[in-house]
Amino acid sequence: MRAVDLIRKKRDSGEHSREEINFLISGYTRGEIPDYQMSAWLMAAWIRGLNRSELASLTEAMLYSGEVVNLSDLPGKKVDKHSTGGVGDKTSLILAPIVAAGGVNVPMISGRGLGHTGGTLDKLESIPGFNTALSLKEFRRILGECGMALIGQTAEIAPADKKIYALRDATSTVENVGLICASIMSKKLAEGIDALVLDVKTGSGAFMKKEEDAVMLAEVMVDTAKRMGKKAVALITDMDQPLGRMAGHSNEVIESIEVLKGRGPKDLRDLSLELSAWMFFLAERTASVEEGRRLAETMVASGQALGKFRKGIELQGGDARVVEDYKILPTAQSRIDVTSTASGFLAATDCMEFGIALAMLGGGRETKEDKIDHGVGLEFRKRIGDRVEKGEPLATIHYNSDAKLGEAKSRIAGAFVFSEKQPGEKKLVRRLVGV
Amino acid sequence: MRAVDLIRKKRDSGEHSREEINFLISGYTRGEIPDYQMSAWLMAAWIRGLNRSELASLTEAMLYSGEVVNLSDLPGKKVDKHSTGGVGDKTSLILAPIVAAGGVNVPMISGRGLGHTGGTLDKLESIPGFNTALSLKEFRRILGECGMALIGQTAEIAPADKKIYALRDATSTVENVGLICASIMSKKLAEGIDALVLDVKTGSGAFMKKEEDAVMLAEVMVDTAKRMGKKAVALITDMDQPLGRMAGHSNEVIESIEVLKGRGPKDLRDLSLELSAWMFFLAERTASVEEGRRLAETMVASGQALGKFRKGIELQGGDARVVEDYKILPTAQSRIDVTSTASGFLAATDCMEFGIALAMLGGGRETKEDKIDHGVGLEFRKRIGDRVEKGEPLATIHYNSDAKLGEAKSRIAGAFVFSEKQPGEKKLVRRLVGV
Repeated sequence: MRAVDLIRKKRDSGEHSREEINFLISGYTRGEIPDYQMSAWLMAAWIRGLNRSELASLTEAMLYSGEVVNLSDLPGKKVDKHSTGGVGDKTSLILAPIVAAGGVNVPMISGRGLGHTGGTLDKLESIPGFNTALSLKEFRRILGECGMALIGQTAEIAPADKKIYALRDATSTVENVGLICASIMSKKLAEGIDALVLDVKTGSGAFMKKEEDAVMLAEVMVDTAKRMGKKAVALITDMDQPLGRMAGHSNEVIESIEVLKGRGPKDLRDLSLELSAWMFFLAERTASVEEGRRLAETMVASGQALGKFRKGIELQGGDARVVEDYKILPTAQSRIDVTSTASGFLAATDCMEFGIALAMLGGGRETKEDKIDHGVGLEFRKRIGDRVEKGEPLATIHYNSDAKLGEAKSRIAGAFVFSEKQPGEKKLVRRLVGV
Repeated sequence: MRAVDLIRKKRDSGEHSREEINFLISGYTRGEIPDYQMSAWLMAAWIRGLNRSELASLTEAMLYSGEVVNLSDLPGKKVDKHSTGGVGDKTSLILAPIVAAGGVNVPMISGRGLGHTGGTLDKLESIPGFNTALSLKEFRRILGECGMALIGQTAEIAPADKKIYALRDATSTVENVGLICASIMSKKLAEGIDALVLDVKTGSGAFMKKEEDAVMLAEVMVDTAKRMGKKAVALITDMDQPLGRMAGHSNEVIESIEVLKGRGPKDLRDLSLELSAWMFFLAERTASVEEGRRLAETMVASGQALGKFRKGIELQGGDARVVEDYKILPTAQSRIDVTSTASGFLAATDCMEFGIALAMLGGGRETKEDKIDHGVGLEFRKRIGDRVEKGEPLATIHYNSDAKLGEAKSRIAGAFVFSEKQPGEKKLVRRLVGV
């Protein structure tokens, strides 16, 4: 087998066998196939596409390019959730303790934020001392002890994905459903899970702006997971406005703890419970999703989920007093309101703008090398459908430097769209895929 | 400007500006754009295509990546011919002395053979002492002295093409009309010519098997030449069987000298005169192609073309006695006939098979690193339309090693197709493009 022939095959819209894909991916990971051949193949695959069977092979090859955590000696099911990302999406911090408290293991390998989206690892690192750089051995130990553990991608996990992703980034081959799917799934399946709940965001703050694109990605991911022998379901959920009221790292940790205390905004609480319910159901902990929802509610109401969160923080070296005392989190020195220049009903938001403004202020990464200011954040004061009078605050910026404050303010102000008529209510969970 | 954005643009079927193409090519040549970005762009360009304006820009950028020979101080027009290659195609050796004898300069930068096709440089190197590795300075001096000079691509000529071609070879982005055109034209225009005659082969022994593909390549090349301010015309010519009766290096030198002596096979003589006629016409040496044909015939009949060939050999260090004494050329030790196993009319040949068999016997290159045995060759004994009786020789193999003789024999025998009815005669020049 030669890489040049496989490139030609994909160029000419051919279908690869499992062996061919494995030859390409394992050869590339070992450095036997050079970058320039892989990038030509990636471009051919981007344009010509990969079918479901090729995608399962690609995911498998990328998965087995590294270590697959074997959690079979750990009693109970292992379930994870993956979100395609958006603004204010902090459900991982809430559902992991809920599901762990309910008796299902949640081994989470998470990512960092870039551009307009935040990352679970970054959020947890607002908690003083919290260590996400655990070895796989420590990861297993903590998971066994408390039913949840959250770490970043290690060098052992799907090294092919790491190498290929860097190449895709430099060769404009990122935005492709098939390649995105293989990248996500190879990392998630390396966690040694039995089932996966996918939260595929759609709307102005999501990568997939159109619902049909989100559904397509969801279908491909669910299909790939099933081909790999895992249970999977995807929820297509709304990202036309931020999830919850808070964005920014300390802010999101606080809001997550609020939900675990039975408070917090309804949309965030509802989605966290819904995702937890599906995790319970796929783990066969409950006989139905409805029962899973009730179990999740009980875990919150009884304080067991909050206790689990506290224990998880402790085990990963963090200061667990945060659960009672938000002041130990980094905070921003100054606050300023973004006020409305118009009156009317809030009809829509260009949600991605909020994420970009946040990153601009230091509360996110504009480039991979940027350091995050965990205290910087945004607080959203109005929701779609709310009546707004001129001069009322739309959002509050928590900031430390006013270097780009003016630009951030006008970006945020410009991202609110008003109408004279009150818009109809939108469903938070738009569709289910794979049920 | 960033390479990653230009890759995205072509991936999404966008059209590049002259500046964008120049940024890519000059950046790549200088080593500022890495191989993996160029190969992704090449694949996108291969699949999405390049329009005429982009092609002219690409050719221009590749041309000016290196030195463009300035022959303006040399009196008279400079014209060259380029063939897309086939089996037994040796017209360069014949028309260069004819045209030079007729008073038009022929500055030829030629290539080497690979796979089923031979190269002009390799053929000339059968002549003991013939040096094709001249510096550009020597090239100019010899051209000035005798009106013709033949060298290989130097490091100064279109270095972008050299670098890009190696990458295309490794990434299955070779067979694309636009990229082929830019590669050919950037090298040819670097010769400092005023006009170019293109011989685009079509048929079973050509790269372009279908006439419509040959015509498309011809149109694109003629258009590109004209956009670059050069006169150009393309002849679409037959390669459904070998040109002439001889293939192999010494063999083709002998057959070329025969034509220069007014002998040799009709098809080879006719095409050489026709191409020479077009060169005279484009150089404005004659008022018509018809007049050009008469001038070419006169140059042969008077012995002036042969004399020019002799002088050219001498000036490039070769043993010019070859013109009278073919025995100074390397010859093969053994000969064997390939005989017909059927009776009937020769209806067609799978002409590429002859070239592959020849390379297999050492009379060509299977890989770039192969050394050529100049004495090895093939002699074709039957032409399409000829009546053949069972047992009659179809071809004679001139060989030195019988290692692959059996396989070569059966390839050759299998490449002749017979029919009961005599096939109609095919035209040697099928179409003209750019007239």
